Amino acid sequence: MSAPSAIFPGTHGTEPDDNAIGWGNLFSGVPAVLQDERIECLAASADTRILRIVSIGHVTPPGTWYDQPDTEWVVLLQGQATLRFEREGLRALQPGDFLTIPAGCRHRVEWTSSHPAAIWLAVHYPTG
Amino acid sequence: MSAPSAIFPGTHGTEPDDNAIGWGNLFSGVPAVLQDERIECLAASADTRILRIVSIGHVTPPGTWYDQPDTEWVVLLQGQATLRFEREGLRALQPGDFLTIPAGCRHRVEWTSSHPAAIWLAVHYPTG
Repeated sequence: MSAPSAIFPGTHGTEPDDNAIGWGNLFSGVPAVLQDERIECLAASADTRILRIVSIGHVTPPGTWYDQPDTEWVVLLQGQATLRFEREGLRALQPGDFLTIPAGCRHRVEWTSSHPAAIWLAVHYPTG
Repeated sequence: MSAPSAIFPGTHGTEPDDNAIGWGNLFSGVPAVLQDERIECLAASADTRILRIVSIGHVTPPGTWYDQPDTEWVVLLQGQATLRFEREGLRALQPGDFLTIPAGCRHRVEWTSSHPAAIWLAVHYPTG
């Protein structure tokens, strides 16, 4: 839902070889408390980014929207969350719920659960 | 792990508007029995495909490998599975385990669970 803040740390690794298999677990390395939403880049190419986002009660700052130039496909994998879309209004999400958010579709995270943390997987890729 | 056989059917939908939000649930619409592995396209652009794959004991046909021209990022979300890589050998997967499989990295699905079904999410995108 925004730019990644870090390359995925923790219980994973890649061989010292650019052509090696990178691996990890989406549900590992989730802290009990986070000051800020955590956005980690799991994989990327020139135009595509695959992100894990961990929200523990975090929401989009009041009065602001995400308004992105690329397409975002996002799935909630753990916890609960509510998104707000400027045109479509609110949508409550349960684990497994996925959305394709077109470029320029203004949206915000209105609510996320704390127990358990909300774990998202987001794929940003070029439109068209 | 191969080309999609269908656009994702079932408990989801999009508005009658190309620019609308597409939605669904990764864990819904999974049958108890499948003759063949089911591959459904959840979202796509010119170069990127996001697929749900449901395997119920299905494996790659004996003696064959997947050998793909693009990068595949894949995560197992339900069930258990074992992959075999030509160079790296076997890897057992639990829910949440993800891998980035480089283009040209020959691999096969050696085993998948039936109860519960193995549910994968795969993202194919251009290398580089």
